[in-house]
Amino acid sequence: MAVRAAVAGASGYAGGEILRLLLGHPEVEIGALTAHSNAGQPLGVSQPHLVPLAGRILEPTDPAVLAGHDVVFLALPHGQSAAVAEQLGDSALIVDCGADFRLTDAAQWEAFYGSPHAGTWPYGLPELPGGRDALRGTRRIAVPGCYPTAVSLALAPAYAAGLVEPEAVVVAASGTSGAGKAPKAHLLGSEVMGSMSPYGVGGTHRHTPEMIQNLSAAAGEPVTVSFTPTLAPMPRGILATCSARARPGVGYEELREAYEKAYAGETFVHLLPEGQWPSTAAVTGANTALIQVAYDRAAGRAVVVGAIDNLTKGTAGGAVQSMNIALGLPEELGLSTTGVAP
Amino acid sequence: MAVRAAVAGASGYAGGEILRLLLGHPEVEIGALTAHSNAGQPLGVSQPHLVPLAGRILEPTDPAVLAGHDVVFLALPHGQSAAVAEQLGDSALIVDCGADFRLTDAAQWEAFYGSPHAGTWPYGLPELPGGRDALRGTRRIAVPGCYPTAVSLALAPAYAAGLVEPEAVVVAASGTSGAGKAPKAHLLGSEVMGSMSPYGVGGTHRHTPEMIQNLSAAAGEPVTVSFTPTLAPMPRGILATCSARARPGVGYEELREAYEKAYAGETFVHLLPEGQWPSTAAVTGANTALIQVAYDRAAGRAVVVGAIDNLTKGTAGGAVQSMNIALGLPEELGLSTTGVAP
Amino acid sequence: MAVRAAVAGASGYAGGEILRLLLGHPEVEIGALTAHSNAGQPLGVSQPHLVPLAGRILEPTDPAVLAGHDVVFLALPHGQSAAVAEQLGDSALIVDCGADFRLTDAAQWEAFYGSPHAGTWPYGLPELPGGRDALRGTRRIAVPGCYPTAVSLALAPAYAAGLVEPEAVVVAASGTSGAGKAPKAHLLGSEVMGSMSPYGVGGTHRHTPEMIQNLSAAAGEPVTVSFTPTLAPMPRGILATCSARARPGVGYEELREAYEKAYAGETFVHLLPEGQWPSTAAVTGANTALIQVAYDRAAGRAVVVGAIDNLTKGTAGGAVQSMNIALGLPEELGLSTTGVAP
Amino acid sequence: MAVRAAVAGASGYAGGEILRLLLGHPEVEIGALTAHSNAGQPLGVSQPHLVPLAGRILEPTDPAVLAGHDVVFLALPHGQSAAVAEQLGDSALIVDCGADFRLTDAAQWEAFYGSPHAGTWPYGLPELPGGRDALRGTRRIAVPGCYPTAVSLALAPAYAAGLVEPEAVVVAASGTSGAGKAPKAHLLGSEVMGSMSPYGVGGTHRHTPEMIQNLSAAAGEPVTVSFTPTLAPMPRGILATCSARARPGVGYEELREAYEKAYAGETFVHLLPEGQWPSTAAVTGANTALIQVAYDRAAGRAVVVGAIDNLTKGTAGGAVQSMNIALGLPEELGLSTTGVAP
Repeated sequence: MAVRAAVAGASGYAGGEILRLLLGHPEVEIGALTAHSNAGQPLGVSQPHLVPLAGRILEPTDPAVLAGHDVVFLALPHGQSAAVAEQLGDSALIVDCGADFRLTDAAQWEAFYGSPHAGTWPYGLPELPGGRDALRGTRRIAVPGCYPTAVSLALAPAYAAGLVEPEAVVVAASGTSGAGKAPKAHLLGSEVMGSMSPYGVGGTHRHTPEMIQNLSAAAGEPVTVSFTPTLAPMPRGILATCSARARPGVGYEELREAYEKAYAGETFVHLLPEGQWPSTAAVTGANTALIQVAYDRAAGRAVVVGAIDNLTKGTAGGAVQSMNIALGLPEELGLSTTGVAP
Repeated sequence: MAVRAAVAGASGYAGGEILRLLLGHPEVEIGALTAHSNAGQPLGVSQPHLVPLAGRILEPTDPAVLAGHDVVFLALPHGQSAAVAEQLGDSALIVDCGADFRLTDAAQWEAFYGSPHAGTWPYGLPELPGGRDALRGTRRIAVPGCYPTAVSLALAPAYAAGLVEPEAVVVAASGTSGAGKAPKAHLLGSEVMGSMSPYGVGGTHRHTPEMIQNLSAAAGEPVTVSFTPTLAPMPRGILATCSARARPGVGYEELREAYEKAYAGETFVHLLPEGQWPSTAAVTGANTALIQVAYDRAAGRAVVVGAIDNLTKGTAGGAVQSMNIALGLPEELGLSTTGVAP
Repeated sequence: MAVRAAVAGASGYAGGEILRLLLGHPEVEIGALTAHSNAGQPLGVSQPHLVPLAGRILEPTDPAVLAGHDVVFLALPHGQSAAVAEQLGDSALIVDCGADFRLTDAAQWEAFYGSPHAGTWPYGLPELPGGRDALRGTRRIAVPGCYPTAVSLALAPAYAAGLVEPEAVVVAASGTSGAGKAPKAHLLGSEVMGSMSPYGVGGTHRHTPEMIQNLSAAAGEPVTVSFTPTLAPMPRGILATCSARARPGVGYEELREAYEKAYAGETFVHLLPEGQWPSTAAVTGANTALIQVAYDRAAGRAVVVGAIDNLTKGTAGGAVQSMNIALGLPEELGLSTTGVAP
Repeated sequence: MAVRAAVAGASGYAGGEILRLLLGHPEVEIGALTAHSNAGQPLGVSQPHLVPLAGRILEPTDPAVLAGHDVVFLALPHGQSAAVAEQLGDSALIVDCGADFRLTDAAQWEAFYGSPHAGTWPYGLPELPGGRDALRGTRRIAVPGCYPTAVSLALAPAYAAGLVEPEAVVVAASGTSGAGKAPKAHLLGSEVMGSMSPYGVGGTHRHTPEMIQNLSAAAGEPVTVSFTPTLAPMPRGILATCSARARPGVGYEELREAYEKAYAGETFVHLLPEGQWPSTAAVTGANTALIQVAYDRAAGRAVVVGAIDNLTKGTAGGAVQSMNIALGLPEELGLSTTGVAP
């Protein structure tokens, strides 16, 4: 019998990507679609690429509308999920694509988000050590941030194997959809095409504590992360270039082996053959993370590069994958490892 | 039982898109993959987005390799399909993505291609009048050119309904993948990003006679087409802006009605609601053609705009759709109407 | 002695481009810079590329601020220029980059803009027949629209020489800066990158009557223009593909000759050698229009393609060129014919 | 009296940019233009944006053609400059945009370039400590690599002031023109648009020893650099994100002060006001480097981001600036600090 799923925030980028994936999911029936300012409109106005749903009318984001579904995906601005979740109760699996329930440390939450901590839900990154166990049978999922997904998959094996020092440096480039659909002048096509620019420099980006949380857990000791995000002239994709000083005696072979072991059985994390490097184009629309590792002998650092689609593996795909696990469905259902390229 | 399919020209853009679609086709098993200069390489080197096939080794494009498959897709340079087809015989369904067998008029072929005419195969555009009948049970399919697909779907209803004069003017913008993967200086990213430019101006583009053939068939009289293709700074997509003088007494209502009738039952051609216009982004990776029609009263012209993905509906999707019909499978199998956007 | 120039609307795209050009103009001293919502801010916040002016504070757009300059450039939303001009009086040369004073026909103005006609000023397209005469010594200049600049330069010679029928068909692609800097969802980078889409289809775009006005004047008879603008994934540039049925007896030679004659002495309109076609990249930041002409024998049409930078020759460059003429300065001063490419 | 300049390699991207700048240089007259495979062609075919030189015929790159000029710019593949320079003798100022004469350490040269070291010429980065002195009156200039220009300007002040540890981590994104104009499949527009990808990972990029040389000189001790270049979907621009652990007691104030001091008198290096971050768009076509500095307290690192145009400040602009110094001309002549944006 089909799983009935509602999507709150269906007119935004995350909501649209969730719907794109659910349309191809053999066990899911799409139920209520809700929005805030676009409520009342046909979905086709805001999501013209979702042709099979073009005529569906967006309803207001109201617990009464969301009730009665097996799964409710929340693609809402930060701070709104707790209230909705409370009203829905435990009858539904709630998959929150916002940040509200990702962090375990209330102090970090408050420092970066400036509001009281709402709690912590099982974290939707199955490929992390212990990741799947946390998700089986759960009624609540906190979908990871897009940057933390890329960075954690890139660096966790090195930390879990104890191969690198606990000071990571990460520079990541993101496509503009990561910044959402609310119109802002600096996100206009005229501004972003032909341009690379940094933002949230100096450790201020809100995804930083989430990376620290994941990598510290993998390392079994506190890890610092110097994280600089940059905005790239493309709609989708994250390329995360991550490095850390290798521990004494660690070289390329140890690194390669750790990554091969970590991802040997994973469908959605693909360690590339030696000599090939990830590109964001290769994962467009796919739930795949492409990973490659190098050792810079002169600088004594492990350099790991990871590429994901920020909307797929970085948001909606991760959400669907985690939902599959929570519901006891095959983990790959409705997800593709094949990118749309060129 | 699965249909076993081979792809000749698997390292190019058309071949890669055919494989992307076949990977999601529930009735197809992917057999031999062949290439010319890339033979011997793993597919992952040239098609890193096709993760599930990354380790498959490309074989030479040799009839012996292609033999023994139920379907053979040919994604070869023009002029090479006839020889391969002859050697394969009638045991296989051959789906040719090249131009060789598209034109019925040998003189037009020779004028535009400068070589002897190889013949005419059933034409793979099911949505044209009579299109499906020609494909049922056939062992040979000529997949239409990408521009003729967009233009014919945009203008055929107006011609079939006798609403416009037989002189069409078409200006179309194409993504760069339409020009293929062979490295040429004018196709470098440095040259195409930030730039629009025309080519094949003045009626010299080889897709022109194919448009004329389709529109003349729809009109039941000879139609001229003034066609100007332009290269747009995007990897995929065709936006075709088509117009023709409206016949006396014809206005918006007649036009709208003709298009609604023509495409009411079609899965892959979507006439947009009034007020919405097609974009190529909305059909990225989808087998959908988005169409909208307007009437310019002051100029007395019907203006029809169509958007497709040149690699999907314009090549590989059209090929798979036609294969489905030829094999008696459901026409939609393995094809999506949902684009990957933004 | 230096010409002192003020720019109203200095935080927008047109205002920024005017300033970029004035910074390189040897006879101009930059005076007051005004803005609406950005007043009070340093210019560097909204125009980070104008490094030499980064610390200049934007003042409110107020006649008192604009008074006392030799030249005042107005880069304001439509409908605001008349009031400002009236208050400034005839002491200053006013160069209006808005639409308010471009049209001679009040009925056309009212039909397309829905407000009373403010009047007609000398039209700033010197390369049109009689264009320079209208500008010498004037105190008022209406800078043409970007699309009409490209289209008029492309088609006027054919009409002036009587070579084509008075029904033009134009499809033009524009970079996104033509839509301005006000944040709108459909202009986000996420929406426009990788996408072509039409707008204002069916003769509704406000630049249509301006094209008709220019081409009818060149032809000496009423010309209709079926105009379809499209939005291209690039920040700057217009590529206008224009065609009209050739008159009996007219072929390529007659067309080529007319264009060679028309533009032989022009610095800023460059008829390309046979075999080369315009690209928008080649005119980025330049005041150049690149033009090429073809004859489509089978369709019986002249096809002319023109490329300009919408912000330079299409707005700010045209404005400075016309200012130079009005002030009796060398027409080329402060303007470059060299694009920034690749 | 005018300086007569020749350009060898005039059909490539570096050569084209040198010519673009020389066209606006009031003291330079453009002499011979040479090319290899394009010799015999009009320049307009390969450089359509250089309209004023469109008809100039490219000559072969032959010392006899290059002789008799005051300045010769070499924009040749690595390894060809030494022979040309030897034949030209000391009568001409030779400005080499290749790598041949950049490195002082022969062993590093041989390790990264695999050929014998040709020698060391005065280094064309005037803003480095002692940079101008080395250039005054010289007859030979080694123009820095594009990445080392961005990275050295970003990090040298921190090292010169002793504020950071000698282990730098750099991730830089470059536009595709940095990879040149030779057609290669991975540089096709279809491949690069919508995609970020790394290359030369693990310390193997040839610009690494040049960065080490510059930063070690600034620091007065050996500095290691972990450098990862990435290819960004834009034609021009480099964004370099650079970081190093801050020395004990160093915080934001010390860093800011060092950068303010270092660049207070520089025309072409612009330290942004606090709160603003560099973008590559803002320096398109300009000889400007935009710099901003932050201190990441939690990670204990100084983070400095620099943006340049790889073809302007990163190649041709740096070359012209250094030529001006060598010839005793005003350093700013022919160069602009204003970018072409949006």
